[in-house]
Amino acid sequence: MAGSVILPGRAELAALRRRYETELLESVVPFWTRHSPDPVNGGYWNCLDRDGSVYDTTKYGWLQGRQAWMLAKLYRTVDQRREWLELALSGARFLRERCLLPGGRLPFSMTADGRAVYVQRKIFTECFYVLALAELSRATGEAHYAREAEEEFERVWSWAFDWTKVGRPSYPGETPKRSLAVPMILLNLIEELTDGDPRRYSAEVEECLRLVRLHVRRDERLVLETVAPDGGTLDSAEGRLLNPGHAIEAGWFLQQWAQRLGRADLSHEAIEIVRWSFDRGWDEEHGGLFCFLDAKGHSPLPLEWSMKLWWPHAEALYAHLLSWSITRDAADWERFLRTDTWAFSRFPDPAHGEWYGYLDRRGEVTHRFKGGPYKGCFHVPRALWLCGRLLRKLEAER
Amino acid sequence: MAGSVILPGRAELAALRRRYETELLESVVPFWTRHSPDPVNGGYWNCLDRDGSVYDTTKYGWLQGRQAWMLAKLYRTVDQRREWLELALSGARFLRERCLLPGGRLPFSMTADGRAVYVQRKIFTECFYVLALAELSRATGEAHYAREAEEEFERVWSWAFDWTKVGRPSYPGETPKRSLAVPMILLNLIEELTDGDPRRYSAEVEECLRLVRLHVRRDERLVLETVAPDGGTLDSAEGRLLNPGHAIEAGWFLQQWAQRLGRADLSHEAIEIVRWSFDRGWDEEHGGLFCFLDAKGHSPLPLEWSMKLWWPHAEALYAHLLSWSITRDAADWERFLRTDTWAFSRFPDPAHGEWYGYLDRRGEVTHRFKGGPYKGCFHVPRALWLCGRLLRKLEAER
Repeated sequence: MAGSVILPGRAELAALRRRYETELLESVVPFWTRHSPDPVNGGYWNCLDRDGSVYDTTKYGWLQGRQAWMLAKLYRTVDQRREWLELALSGARFLRERCLLPGGRLPFSMTADGRAVYVQRKIFTECFYVLALAELSRATGEAHYAREAEEEFERVWSWAFDWTKVGRPSYPGETPKRSLAVPMILLNLIEELTDGDPRRYSAEVEECLRLVRLHVRRDERLVLETVAPDGGTLDSAEGRLLNPGHAIEAGWFLQQWAQRLGRADLSHEAIEIVRWSFDRGWDEEHGGLFCFLDAKGHSPLPLEWSMKLWWPHAEALYAHLLSWSITRDAADWERFLRTDTWAFSRFPDPAHGEWYGYLDRRGEVTHRFKGGPYKGCFHVPRALWLCGRLLRKLEAER
Repeated sequence: MAGSVILPGRAELAALRRRYETELLESVVPFWTRHSPDPVNGGYWNCLDRDGSVYDTTKYGWLQGRQAWMLAKLYRTVDQRREWLELALSGARFLRERCLLPGGRLPFSMTADGRAVYVQRKIFTECFYVLALAELSRATGEAHYAREAEEEFERVWSWAFDWTKVGRPSYPGETPKRSLAVPMILLNLIEELTDGDPRRYSAEVEECLRLVRLHVRRDERLVLETVAPDGGTLDSAEGRLLNPGHAIEAGWFLQQWAQRLGRADLSHEAIEIVRWSFDRGWDEEHGGLFCFLDAKGHSPLPLEWSMKLWWPHAEALYAHLLSWSITRDAADWERFLRTDTWAFSRFPDPAHGEWYGYLDRRGEVTHRFKGGPYKGCFHVPRALWLCGRLLRKLEAER
């Protein structure tokens, strides 16, 4: 397929860049700025129906932190719109002033006014809070955000490799294991925390890079979601599980570190991770990326394995564009275009803005809402912003 | 549709009964007796691929208890095959001797040799253990099983309405609520515990009947899965959630109690619950029962809402047949036939036996395995056994 791909010239890159910027600034961001603000309590409504109406007032911690991060980032790097900064601050304040629990923990879900509904025995709400604080420290220039971000990160790091510290019990029959999610998200946090100086936390970065690599199976050209503590393969459904979107996201996190650190070996490995995960995860029959696969071809246990979700496609867009910006290989450009064509013809909702989140295997919308417990102002705007920024750079180089 | 339905005569009932008995005894039960026994540790392999091969050695507590109950029931009521009784005893012994935790708790999942992998902060593994013990007390005539069943039931009852007692934390923002699952399963446990004497536990039965009724909305002709403690409606996605298969199952649990207690009002209500839940849950476009719906027409949050799962269809088969045996209404017979035709043409696997568990909205198989963490030797054989037994009775009456 790649053989017939025509590589883009300056005009094509510019047209693409304009489409991404338009989608970001005229469809996606306005959906969230218009419909999500909660003027009474601060923070954001997360459960937004197709047209932006609130169908549930429960708020979700992952998405509060992520949206605050995204809006602060757009304020600082795209356009200093007062509205974006104020809304970013509103989300961070909501988490800090209404939701924060003893010891720096945060709920997964909360009432409109911030009372905990459910606290996950995981570390992710806290991770996304670190992202928000780190970006707000730059967007506002206020040093206390940086300090709070670092303090929260130190806590997250202290919990990250032993979840009994966040209340997860340990049982005698459990298999010791490592999840790709943990070193991945930590690499992303450190990148955001150390925007100015990549050498800070360098021991932590090296450890996370080592841990991510434990999941890579070069001989099989795949990335396992869960492995033994020493990187060995677990003989179970969990040990065979592939999460292509996750691996693709890990790939571009790694690539950004490779670029920051000037490491060609790491860059090459990151490119392979993205290619292998995409090629294996792509549905040859209906197009799009599967949510989950089994490395040995069994049926994956998650019921949604064959659904096509917004976020793996958003991650693939940026991952392929980033790979191509380095390799200039037509096969990477073809993967980018294939994802772009498939995703842009199915996910966006021109009538009300933003993207649908959930499609069936054939690419038909199964859930009409734009925001829910796991979908908010994050993967779509982040990918559009990252792609737009990279396209602008590529355009300038031509 | 019901207008053109031809009610069955004796020959049709007999043919149907033979089909159900053949499916039970020549396809479904042999799949489990052939592939599930673990001769080393006792109990059953639960993760069985399409052909019965074990794809994961993790065992699942719900399914250990359920399979032990089913096999003991078949031994006592269908055919005194030594193999069935021994296998039932093997599952009960596995739970008691290898899995039981302090205080009568049981793991949700365990290693092949019974070490806890995960303990749910719910009561269901223990419920299915009660079922197994109760049926084994009758199948073996050994009084200690009855005693153990009652002791475990007393513990389950003491936990059932306050899950902080099984380790579920309570958070300040949580909405007090009741789940249909709890009074439903308790009614089923008491039915099995009191096979000989329906008057035992009569206060508990009345309380469960009252609690199930809190979920029924006569004016809207629907059954809500989750309600406020006083039966009020919760204004949230959770409060609007419909689980048609669950409500249909609750309907026949209620109907069996109505028959045992000779209560016409309860019988009428049970018939309505089954009809409303089925009519609302049926997919007019592709046929089959949806997993979840939202009472106000929003997209349900669960990703699998539009999938067609084995168990709601199995429950509907028996629920409609039981309703029709009482009403002799052509509309109930039509619902039974519609479910029978749709389910039998999609779920069974004639090549390897048993039924597939998971179909997409269109009715195509999405997961090839026959056994997994939530699917085992239970809903399909139970429905086939119940229908076969009722058809035999109806046939004799003609």
